[in-house]
Amino acid sequence: MTDETAFIGLLRGLATDPAARGLMDDAAVLDIGDTRLVLTSDTLVEGVHFLPADPPDSVGWKLAAVNLSDLAAKGAKPIACLMNYALSGDDGWDSAFLSGLRAALEQFAMPLVGGDTVAMPRGSARSFTLTAIGSATATPVPSRTGARAGDVLYVTGPVGDSGAGLALLRSGQSSPIALIDAYRRPQPRVAEGKALAAYVTAMMDISDGLLIDAQRMAVASGIGVTVDYIPVSDAFLALRGRAAQIEAATSGDDYELLFAAPEGAVLPVPAIAVGRFDTGGGMRLVLDGQTVPLPKHIGYQHKGST
Amino acid sequence: MTDETAFIGLLRGLATDPAARGLMDDAAVLDIGDTRLVLTSDTLVEGVHFLPADPPDSVGWKLAAVNLSDLAAKGAKPIACLMNYALSGDDGWDSAFLSGLRAALEQFAMPLVGGDTVAMPRGSARSFTLTAIGSATATPVPSRTGARAGDVLYVTGPVGDSGAGLALLRSGQSSPIALIDAYRRPQPRVAEGKALAAYVTAMMDISDGLLIDAQRMAVASGIGVTVDYIPVSDAFLALRGRAAQIEAATSGDDYELLFAAPEGAVLPVPAIAVGRFDTGGGMRLVLDGQTVPLPKHIGYQHKGST
Repeated sequence: MTDETAFIGLLRGLATDPAARGLMDDAAVLDIGDTRLVLTSDTLVEGVHFLPADPPDSVGWKLAAVNLSDLAAKGAKPIACLMNYALSGDDGWDSAFLSGLRAALEQFAMPLVGGDTVAMPRGSARSFTLTAIGSATATPVPSRTGARAGDVLYVTGPVGDSGAGLALLRSGQSSPIALIDAYRRPQPRVAEGKALAAYVTAMMDISDGLLIDAQRMAVASGIGVTVDYIPVSDAFLALRGRAAQIEAATSGDDYELLFAAPEGAVLPVPAIAVGRFDTGGGMRLVLDGQTVPLPKHIGYQHKGST
Repeated sequence: MTDETAFIGLLRGLATDPAARGLMDDAAVLDIGDTRLVLTSDTLVEGVHFLPADPPDSVGWKLAAVNLSDLAAKGAKPIACLMNYALSGDDGWDSAFLSGLRAALEQFAMPLVGGDTVAMPRGSARSFTLTAIGSATATPVPSRTGARAGDVLYVTGPVGDSGAGLALLRSGQSSPIALIDAYRRPQPRVAEGKALAAYVTAMMDISDGLLIDAQRMAVASGIGVTVDYIPVSDAFLALRGRAAQIEAATSGDDYELLFAAPEGAVLPVPAIAVGRFDTGGGMRLVLDGQTVPLPKHIGYQHKGST
């Protein structure tokens, strides 16, 4: 078992440039002349971040979407990307992967400009990396660290659809399609991120669940937070009922933006208030006026085998 | 067997932005305001690009060096990099990897600003990706395509040391150290690339061997080339003798720059003339005044198992 936390500690010792933001954020911010570049890179590993049986076009889509979501969290406009691709040994799979990737790159206007193609030894899990470059649209570039006591915590849309879609697929079902699509074709909130960047005091994308990411924002900002509402979709409610809302707040891959803004701010895009920051420490959950104990697992953890 | 050539053909259909240079070059070139950014990303796969028994610090060094060498080929000054790291499950290995990476990043002043850390399923080959960003120092940015008939073909140093070092290691030997170090701690020619960029008509780094890369430059430039000299080091000569020079010209990982410049150009750094471009097609090899048949394998091919 490698201690990932210890390793990231070592990496922080190496990444002392201010552009690295202490590796505490979702992206690096690098000034090039008058342009503030936002740089992010994410890897998807077979058997960890996607299933070998997942449709390849959805894997290609997600490789772009996960990086676009990081750009969105910085309010950045996509400029270009590079991809590092591990050939599958199956031409049809590779071609379908590219069609999903192409759909995402075209929708979000992020041209592919380079990268690398490798073959893996037989039997190895493949992994795919995409590095996305964007330009910031607001100063300062939003980070996780700026929330202030009294700020309202918002999310750009309901949570839990993707987690519900994954659970359906795991039990052999393929509908309702709205939930399946939330898992397979998540929509990064690029336009919303650009619109919000100048209004927020902190912003990040929800990658591991509303609760764990709200806690991360509070910790990074050195304050406390109370979550008092969990927004779920009609499709989620119809299938799972309101009782499953805790699950919706602790499953991953939501691709919504989580942000803090001052009380009374007039926001440029629709958003749902889900809590409030305070001068205390830690996180509390209050639902329907009742304090609710935090669940044991407050977020999704990608499970590797090491 | 996936057809990598067919896959790259599909990728080219996707990478139509001018910055991609048709994926025919070692790096992408992207204008950001007044800065011309050079972007490159390379992946090293365990069992393909390095051996599981290789010292981890040398793997970390090489991950930086292979990308720095691509920047060097564009005459670019390193600005920053992002790394995508697959945890090994062995803290000592990971830590030693980082020490080698750190040494290269410090020597070449390329700060680490971001990336991703993942765990692989048990038993999988790991892979490491580094994406390097540099700024071009000359206009036009050198490419493989600009060599002209009559230009002289140069290389910045002797070839074959790294291949000889790898052969020694494979036979259980660990000296002479100059050859072992050429394999384990290759020196990307970053300073030489910057100095040469304004003087060359075409430039690339030698990654798969002098002969195959000379042929690639000639093909990209739409002309022919005759290679008439193969420079090898004293260490190589002492161990292998002049008869092994073909091997020196067909083994990989040389990390020297190969470039074309007009006859009589006064170059800013030492370089060795190794041939001349001509109006014909193809490549010829002439050694000691005698035309020599091209070897069956004119360069190193990384062997994956797919």
